[in-house]
Amino acid sequence: MAGKVVLHYFNGRGKMESIRWLLTVAEVDFDEVFLTTREQYLKLLSDGDLMFQQVPMVEMDGMKLVQTKAILNYIAEKHNLHGKDLKDKLMVNTHSEGLMDLMEMIMMLPFAADVKTKLDNIQNKAKDRYLPVFEKALSGPIYLVGGRLSCADVQLLECTLMLEEKFAGILAEFPNLKSFQGRMTRIPAVSRFLQPGSKRKPQPDDVYVKTIMEVFDIKSPFL
Amino acid sequence: MAGKVVLHYFNGRGKMESIRWLLTVAEVDFDEVFLTTREQYLKLLSDGDLMFQQVPMVEMDGMKLVQTKAILNYIAEKHNLHGKDLKDKLMVNTHSEGLMDLMEMIMMLPFAADVKTKLDNIQNKAKDRYLPVFEKALSGPIYLVGGRLSCADVQLLECTLMLEEKFAGILAEFPNLKSFQGRMTRIPAVSRFLQPGSKRKPQPDDVYVKTIMEVFDIKSPFL
Repeated sequence: MAGKVVLHYFNGRGKMESIRWLLTVAEVDFDEVFLTTREQYLKLLSDGDLMFQQVPMVEMDGMKLVQTKAILNYIAEKHNLHGKDLKDKLMVNTHSEGLMDLMEMIMMLPFAADVKTKLDNIQNKAKDRYLPVFEKALSGPIYLVGGRLSCADVQLLECTLMLEEKFAGILAEFPNLKSFQGRMTRIPAVSRFLQPGSKRKPQPDDVYVKTIMEVFDIKSPFL
Repeated sequence: MAGKVVLHYFNGRGKMESIRWLLTVAEVDFDEVFLTTREQYLKLLSDGDLMFQQVPMVEMDGMKLVQTKAILNYIAEKHNLHGKDLKDKLMVNTHSEGLMDLMEMIMMLPFAADVKTKLDNIQNKAKDRYLPVFEKALSGPIYLVGGRLSCADVQLLECTLMLEEKFAGILAEFPNLKSFQGRMTRIPAVSRFLQPGSKRKPQPDDVYVKTIMEVFDIKSPFL
């Protein structure tokens, strides 16, 4: 009855990539419809499919879900990836919010005017503010919260892989994070997602940026 | 055992104000410690009290909570203000994320270089993208989701009051929102919070901005 999950977004990472990762780990199969033209976007708007005129939009369980974090929480909760009780859920959310803050900075890079300054800032914040927190949380435990896999672990893997793309060797001072990556990538669904040909998206390129600017009718980079 | 809730933040709205609102509606009494100097902030850092080096920080139930949305979710969940089941919780989160997006735009205004442009943008987005969604959700039901009060309702009240401060009469085209405000302000805890002398904070002024820039050692407005 529920039908297959369908993701509506650009053919690139952006805000949808964390949703792709989480569905993958939850072993939920999904289809994708890529936004490539402004007409497609206007059609979604006029059909009333985008509650706040924004994507990501995810068709799931007979609903048209929007707002990235609301979608992530729903999937995590539904698939027991959100902590076993109130306090574990709090800690999952706290870690997750920190990771989303950091990933958002990387996500916005293609739209930045001064990329070098922004990259330096991201590297400093990653090494000083964020990675030490997760390194410490994983000194002993194999998952971030409550001894079991949660959406925060999935986001930590996604985030550390993104950081390594930009700053090779950034995990050298964080051995627990490196071990964590190794453990996570041995999960069969994750291992498949990391293979070429999967639904994982590459780093943003000029086509991705150009498409977003055309679809949303943006005239100049906004940062 | 748990002790009193203590909020650590600036003496102003910022990211803490939604937490103050939610605690108020949950009828949880709280104390406040205001950050006024960089030394206070450095002390919190060196004591390891700020997981990601950021405020809001909330002492509650023997923990030191950070990350605004994680804190809001915890309070909402604990006090039955987060939807009764998985789907209601999804809708609460979806509305809430939209409201937080809109309130964040207003929150950043004191740090903006071009306030007039930003104000116009906020007014347009409020009237075109956000308020129609909530107006429609309240055509009939008295609360946004599932026939009962949730954190999304509290945030909607907070947000519409903020909008009216900036754009008097903005609710004229949204009669359901105006009625909703009337209902919400008759809740005794809300009514008390709206009286002078409560812990509700005024709109940001120059002292608030100056304090934040000193505490975080920021040299120029960052927008």
